[in-house]
Amino acid sequence: MPHAAPIDSSPDEHAPHGEHAFDMVTADEFKSAFREHPGGVALITADAGNGPVALTATSVASVSADPPLLVFSVSALSSSAPTLTTADTVVVHLLGADDLPLAQLGATSGIDRFADASAWTRLVTGEPVFHGVPRWIRARVVNRFESGGSTVIVAHAVQVNLPEEPSDRGLVYLNRQWHHLGEHSRITDV
Amino acid sequence: MPHAAPIDSSPDEHAPHGEHAFDMVTADEFKSAFREHPGGVALITADAGNGPVALTATSVASVSADPPLLVFSVSALSSSAPTLTTADTVVVHLLGADDLPLAQLGATSGIDRFADASAWTRLVTGEPVFHGVPRWIRARVVNRFESGGSTVIVAHAVQVNLPEEPSDRGLVYLNRQWHHLGEHSRITDV
Repeated sequence: MPHAAPIDSSPDEHAPHGEHAFDMVTADEFKSAFREHPGGVALITADAGNGPVALTATSVASVSADPPLLVFSVSALSSSAPTLTTADTVVVHLLGADDLPLAQLGATSGIDRFADASAWTRLVTGEPVFHGVPRWIRARVVNRFESGGSTVIVAHAVQVNLPEEPSDRGLVYLNRQWHHLGEHSRITDV
Repeated sequence: MPHAAPIDSSPDEHAPHGEHAFDMVTADEFKSAFREHPGGVALITADAGNGPVALTATSVASVSADPPLLVFSVSALSSSAPTLTTADTVVVHLLGADDLPLAQLGATSGIDRFADASAWTRLVTGEPVFHGVPRWIRARVVNRFESGGSTVIVAHAVQVNLPEEPSDRGLVYLNRQWHHLGEHSRITDV
């Protein structure tokens, strides 16, 4: 059973809320596990009144279609956290491979992500939106809760922009590298 | 500004909690937006005392590395929902392309996903785990909340199993098809 590698079956382990039960996984181990878990890429923007922020995130997922709810999380260490954890609404740009420069913009620290005034505009409702991204969702935050130095945010879609034609040019982040999807990556023998 | 397509700026839209503010996005529109958002693939298993369940999910994401927290969501329509929304612990198998048969198993309705007794075992702590998956995380549920017919679940990793060598053979679900990642999908001109 080489895959299982059961842990030491110490008494603490079996205590449902034993102190040691939460101390067995190091941050490095956890990061290693997720480093190889592919993530779709989104650029999340908002403005809570203190200027626009933008953050590239791989944590965006659909929770429910009816009502239309999505979830994502934001680390308190992110420069966008103060705004994203207080804004009433956000814009989630769902990025394809053609949007890679934007993904990189939102993932680069120490720059003004809105320096190029020709790259973005505001919706009539005020949120920043970047030009050229065919798929984005404006969503109203309906729930947020702190989880270990990050905030998990659930938001209700109130506006969706879709491309006229689907592109299938998916963008994925894996193991610190960018990947693009298409016919070349499709598994055909299933 | 062809990308922006602002909505009608009706009075209801500007009401922060106006009734119509939550009625503008249809389930079909929302599904269309996320259909082209690539998702890493995980098989989540648990047993709350009524037998093992397994569910393929693309919603698994890392929330925090220290403490090691992850999030996923489960639709109430899933046959696994009654167990996954009550279990104290879960096992999240992070699947690679080599694990595609398991991804399909957990995504197929109306079958006994544990019928092949040689395909899985139990950890000493009781959770079902499938053979041959090199990366999995046992996690204790620390938070769950209802969101529109689904449950968002945050869990604290208490055990991590890692492969001896990273494979880079990522598995992704996009637009109802499976994709695999590798050198062929890597974007190199960045």
